[in-house]
Amino acid sequence: MKIAVAGATGAVGQQMIMCLEERLPDAEVKALASLRSAGKVLEFKKKYVVEELTEHSFDDVDYVLGATENPITAQWAPLAVKAGAVVIDNSSLYRLDEDVPLVIPEINPEDIRTHHGIISNPNCATIIALVAVNALHRRWHVERMIVSTYQAVSGAGLQGIRDLENQIKDPSIPSVAFPHPIAYNLIPQIGGFDAEGYSSEERKMQNEGRKIWHHEKLLVNCTCVRVPTMRSHCESITLQFRDRPDLEEARELLKKAEGVVYADAPSEHLYPTPLMTSDQDLVYVGRLREDISDPLKHSLVLFCSGDQIRKGAATNTVQILERLLAEK
Amino acid sequence: MKIAVAGATGAVGQQMIMCLEERLPDAEVKALASLRSAGKVLEFKKKYVVEELTEHSFDDVDYVLGATENPITAQWAPLAVKAGAVVIDNSSLYRLDEDVPLVIPEINPEDIRTHHGIISNPNCATIIALVAVNALHRRWHVERMIVSTYQAVSGAGLQGIRDLENQIKDPSIPSVAFPHPIAYNLIPQIGGFDAEGYSSEERKMQNEGRKIWHHEKLLVNCTCVRVPTMRSHCESITLQFRDRPDLEEARELLKKAEGVVYADAPSEHLYPTPLMTSDQDLVYVGRLREDISDPLKHSLVLFCSGDQIRKGAATNTVQILERLLAEK
Repeated sequence: MKIAVAGATGAVGQQMIMCLEERLPDAEVKALASLRSAGKVLEFKKKYVVEELTEHSFDDVDYVLGATENPITAQWAPLAVKAGAVVIDNSSLYRLDEDVPLVIPEINPEDIRTHHGIISNPNCATIIALVAVNALHRRWHVERMIVSTYQAVSGAGLQGIRDLENQIKDPSIPSVAFPHPIAYNLIPQIGGFDAEGYSSEERKMQNEGRKIWHHEKLLVNCTCVRVPTMRSHCESITLQFRDRPDLEEARELLKKAEGVVYADAPSEHLYPTPLMTSDQDLVYVGRLREDISDPLKHSLVLFCSGDQIRKGAATNTVQILERLLAEK
Repeated sequence: MKIAVAGATGAVGQQMIMCLEERLPDAEVKALASLRSAGKVLEFKKKYVVEELTEHSFDDVDYVLGATENPITAQWAPLAVKAGAVVIDNSSLYRLDEDVPLVIPEINPEDIRTHHGIISNPNCATIIALVAVNALHRRWHVERMIVSTYQAVSGAGLQGIRDLENQIKDPSIPSVAFPHPIAYNLIPQIGGFDAEGYSSEERKMQNEGRKIWHHEKLLVNCTCVRVPTMRSHCESITLQFRDRPDLEEARELLKKAEGVVYADAPSEHLYPTPLMTSDQDLVYVGRLREDISDPLKHSLVLFCSGDQIRKGAATNTVQILERLLAEK
């Protein structure tokens, strides 16, 4: 089995190769990137000489994991499908296309079967939120989510990390990946804004959540904020359910939920933090409580954190691949 | 006129002296602190030799600005009142006492008149949120607020700043002011937790908001998070109103609101950030938009930021004093 990683030199691409080494150690992995990176050597457990991504890159490939920006993905993904490979793509390009499944394996693995050559990986903040609350949704049915995010600089790629590192040393160095300095700062902008004042990142959770949950009436109001952490996004989430939830049962559901670590003993200082959840594959959930502002008592509040490069991107992609392989 | 600052060596106490120099330059200011700090010299525009706070500290004083922790305040505040001084206190000790006014001068200055020797300054995150949304509340009546905060390390005093500075240099240095490392991290805990899983900081906005607005039915669900910024708290706020709000009118109200800078052109990268709002006295509001998750269209969303040492503490205290003096 031969797997190509497109965009192999970026933060997500490199993590994809590491996840493949961990989870599918026998696979043959080909690292593809732009001409500029061709010949560069990536070294993890194994070594990879980066090859230029061309129209012939996919001739001998079974699966492609995509970690390139939308315009680049638009160039190579159709070629890969034409060459007979199955693409699992982390860009947002195809996510809402009707004939492209959008999959979180813990939530809607069955959707993988309907693919026509491309499967999309959801947005990182969406994956983390939906994994965190899926067990509660299945039990009481989420009608409305109000989300404020705390998103790490690596969500903007390796340059995001460099910007923070640079500015910690010298605050006068301007950001490249962000519209403002990020060291000792917060930026309530991720992506561009639409006419209603929402950023592209803020729209994703409702749009993608509806598709993943097959829940056309899901309502999400999201505020996305970049924060000076290196890795792992956090989210403060208020959930309004159709049915009245029970706090004790919610705790039990989260303890058993697939892909979740229920870390919730705040008086012992146990709750999800970015440092606790960095460089691992599970979504941590804590600070679970009743929403004291909902007079109908149909709402819960929680705080979650997950590594957005792993579970929010690379790991989820490799998990989709594992499901594909298991169905063969 | 002689004014004492109790707790003069802390982050808020020092800022109180600076605010007094700016706003009441003719006042005679006495810097009080514990025996440990006595003799220490504080130097701003003028120099202050710190005196030990004793039972006789208030004999020649007209007003006391309090910047000590609750247990210390409990010791000296009654003595100051007995000595005939008026206390404006930044601790949470008296905030909910029936005969103690809790005042944000832009919102409820008339409450100052009912004091019996003590006036309380509200919690910093509460001041910033209420100044940000007061004009909207007066117009459409806030029923419910859902708030996620992004609170700077200086909210935990000078030691909070030292913890972040230390850990930026050497991540192995443990926090003193926080239960976890704060550099490159987030901590969803400010204060201790109650039986329902809310932290003391998270309870303040509803409890204090009800008193300041004289609005007993106000409902607030708050999640308070410490972030690695030095100064200026930010808050992501969803507001549900009794009456249906109008977005354009809300913009006009915020442009004219007392104590507010309406900074809202997100496509031009203009929105409140901590670096933009540090070391000044106004609350910045931006990212104003309709809540797309409210099918009744009675809700708005915004993001605000204010310097919690100034407007969230010292400046608000000095503004209360200014109102007291104006009424004399």
